[in-house]
Amino acid sequence: MYSNNGMKLFMEPGSVAVIGVSRRTGPGSFNIFENLVNSGFLGKLYPVNPYVDEIMGRKAYPSVKDVPEEIDLAVVSTPRSVVPGIVHECTEKGIRAIIVVGQGFADGDEEGRKLQAEILRIAGQGGARILGPDTFGTANAFNHFTSAFAPMIMKRVPIGIICQTGFYFVGLPNFTVVGKAIDLGNACDIEFAEALEYFEYDPDIRLIFMHIEGISNGRRFMEVARRVAKQKPVLALKTGKGEEGARAAQSHTGSLVGRDEVYDAAFRQCGVIRIGDTDEFEDLAKAFLNLPPMKGKGVAVITITGAGGIMAIDLLEKYNLRLAKLSAETLDRINALAPAWLRVGNPTDIWPAFMIAGYPVEQVFTTTMEACLNDEDVSGIILIFAGFPEPPAPATVDTAEVLPQVAGKFRGKPVLIWLYGPKADALASKMERTGEILVYPTLERAVRTLSRLNQCWEYRLGT
Amino acid sequence: MYSNNGMKLFMEPGSVAVIGVSRRTGPGSFNIFENLVNSGFLGKLYPVNPYVDEIMGRKAYPSVKDVPEEIDLAVVSTPRSVVPGIVHECTEKGIRAIIVVGQGFADGDEEGRKLQAEILRIAGQGGARILGPDTFGTANAFNHFTSAFAPMIMKRVPIGIICQTGFYFVGLPNFTVVGKAIDLGNACDIEFAEALEYFEYDPDIRLIFMHIEGISNGRRFMEVARRVAKQKPVLALKTGKGEEGARAAQSHTGSLVGRDEVYDAAFRQCGVIRIGDTDEFEDLAKAFLNLPPMKGKGVAVITITGAGGIMAIDLLEKYNLRLAKLSAETLDRINALAPAWLRVGNPTDIWPAFMIAGYPVEQVFTTTMEACLNDEDVSGIILIFAGFPEPPAPATVDTAEVLPQVAGKFRGKPVLIWLYGPKADALASKMERTGEILVYPTLERAVRTLSRLNQCWEYRLGT
Repeated sequence: MYSNNGMKLFMEPGSVAVIGVSRRTGPGSFNIFENLVNSGFLGKLYPVNPYVDEIMGRKAYPSVKDVPEEIDLAVVSTPRSVVPGIVHECTEKGIRAIIVVGQGFADGDEEGRKLQAEILRIAGQGGARILGPDTFGTANAFNHFTSAFAPMIMKRVPIGIICQTGFYFVGLPNFTVVGKAIDLGNACDIEFAEALEYFEYDPDIRLIFMHIEGISNGRRFMEVARRVAKQKPVLALKTGKGEEGARAAQSHTGSLVGRDEVYDAAFRQCGVIRIGDTDEFEDLAKAFLNLPPMKGKGVAVITITGAGGIMAIDLLEKYNLRLAKLSAETLDRINALAPAWLRVGNPTDIWPAFMIAGYPVEQVFTTTMEACLNDEDVSGIILIFAGFPEPPAPATVDTAEVLPQVAGKFRGKPVLIWLYGPKADALASKMERTGEILVYPTLERAVRTLSRLNQCWEYRLGT
Repeated sequence: MYSNNGMKLFMEPGSVAVIGVSRRTGPGSFNIFENLVNSGFLGKLYPVNPYVDEIMGRKAYPSVKDVPEEIDLAVVSTPRSVVPGIVHECTEKGIRAIIVVGQGFADGDEEGRKLQAEILRIAGQGGARILGPDTFGTANAFNHFTSAFAPMIMKRVPIGIICQTGFYFVGLPNFTVVGKAIDLGNACDIEFAEALEYFEYDPDIRLIFMHIEGISNGRRFMEVARRVAKQKPVLALKTGKGEEGARAAQSHTGSLVGRDEVYDAAFRQCGVIRIGDTDEFEDLAKAFLNLPPMKGKGVAVITITGAGGIMAIDLLEKYNLRLAKLSAETLDRINALAPAWLRVGNPTDIWPAFMIAGYPVEQVFTTTMEACLNDEDVSGIILIFAGFPEPPAPATVDTAEVLPQVAGKFRGKPVLIWLYGPKADALASKMERTGEILVYPTLERAVRTLSRLNQCWEYRLGT
């Protein structure tokens, strides 16, 4: 029942019938067929609409049964009352994959719940699988297929999205990170486990994100998630936590929502990284796709503000990391640049080294970073620096170039930087272009990200 | 001992001596005197340097005692070893306010701790007060005074900052929000209580932000904070939470740091709003300065995504707010626009109203927002909307204009909006320019802000 083959038809169909195609096209029409034609999908496309002869220059068929060729996937976008009949026709045509787009099923009233059960029964009898209802369906930037009714920006990013809402389907807050996406909607048939399995050995996908309102077959989910998380980082945003949220999730996607602590424990056991908000997805996606693993808990904090160092310590504790114990050799190398009255440790406050002792900024950074990255107990580095209105001390070279260069020499350890100040944005894009250092807009987001890198590494190392 | 008069000399001096003025000026020289001249300060300025006759066209004095006029404030920026002698000269000259800028006192080694004690003793005998050491001193955009060694962007914003580090002193992450700032540094004499009292009745200041590493006189602090928080919102970022952080804070500013739970309880008792990270300051500053109070815990959530509504419920619970119980009348008005199979409540998912039922976006928003804002149990509104690549449904008017207009009709209740999507930034600045709605980049930040508005209101109402 849970074969990848089933999911494959939804993601990589060779021929697609779109049932319930509107005659309206153009901006604001939200025409699935038009959208699919415009996306550049190269498979065969059959619009189905009993009232017209052609749509966008292609022959339209009164019923899916009138299409003369085999069809891999049907996308059904009609009022709910006629869906059971259409699903029946699809099974008669031999279609094994059906996306039911419309709302008003288990997410609606009693009548909708009955209709959903009916659809499921008909599909089961006919050997077809259902994705949805109440779904955007799937999207795949690698073959330009999408069943979404809104135009989407698809890019070949190695991110697989599994969700229960169009909001995440279209690429999370900024709408631009869709590599492959599966919207389970009410998840009446295709569930999280099967979608996860599809991404498990998919060479296009290196990171999986799930938006979960509820999982009905918890045991099956855990079995699959446990295995997949050994291969690739799996992130989960679980919503509908409290009683009221659970009730709302039930009416949104008809999900059965268990107690939140149960999800917490299950995710931990399966190596699934639970995230808290949309910004965390952006933070982790770039980290997992660009940085080396964080192989231990020891962190060196190199900062131009003592106050920032203290904030970092609070955050390391909060996120289950710790200050690295720098070796005597490391400390000697760092302290060679500090004023005599100051014994620098970890966090390493480098401000006095250039403001008081007068060493050039780039020398201070290079010496300190190299010393820390060479230290055995250091598994990752947090830098705290600013985009100043004017440089804080004489610098003969550009700090935005020096820092990534040093990080680039030690590719085995992640380096994350918190940049603040009025010129932080310009400095950030300059640094990130090098690919050696990632920039975060708050210290908490940088430390949290480092912690998740470590969490993922530890799970993969474990049994 | 804790008179506002004392602090007043530090913030509004008529005449200032800068002791230890460098001959170097220009970019990268970090010359306090030059900075003060350039800031446009109109009081009298006396540079003190025994090795030169003039600095920037002004007569330089070998010692502060050679200045022929009265001096309100001395800014001492010399190597630490000569500071006790200079403080002595200042007291002989009758100066009652002294800022000791340099590092290497209680924040440094044993010798530094002795020097700090010595300075304090000398000042006490001479009737002078010390701000620092290890401080940027003060800044005041309203009279253009600043003792900072780095150029600052000062604006007449009604925000008073009290901190123990230059990082916050210069205006928090974006360096631009300094209305008035007091850097207590090691806080050997002037402490938080006194700085707070200075802002208590200051008509220029409507919001107070504190960065705290440690408070030595907790009782005195609570006495003052309790009173001040009744007048104005007081925000606190307390760092140095765990054992390691406390040790680091001690070596950073020589602060004695108590257990974190004690601070938590004390802040709660005094109506001080504890914040977690730098982004929260930005979020709350704009809310407290622009929005009406949040007079109850009931929130109406109006969303274009059901998934977002569920996330909102989770967050309301996390931040001690609740979904408003909408009256039958409110519900009827909202449901008039929903498809027949959907019974909309709170959160109000308005997507089906325009995508399925086909009502124009602006009608849906206007009807729903007005109904909610008129509801007695609603004390504030969270909107969830997106900057779409293209409009999600036919709209005859600009949503960015409609939403603020409706909010503007109900000035007594705060309306916050989470905007996502690729065009969120453009939409956000358009909306915020109207001053009727505030925009937040994540839903959590919007809900957290609403919650703090309510927390502040409840404290002020209480006894």
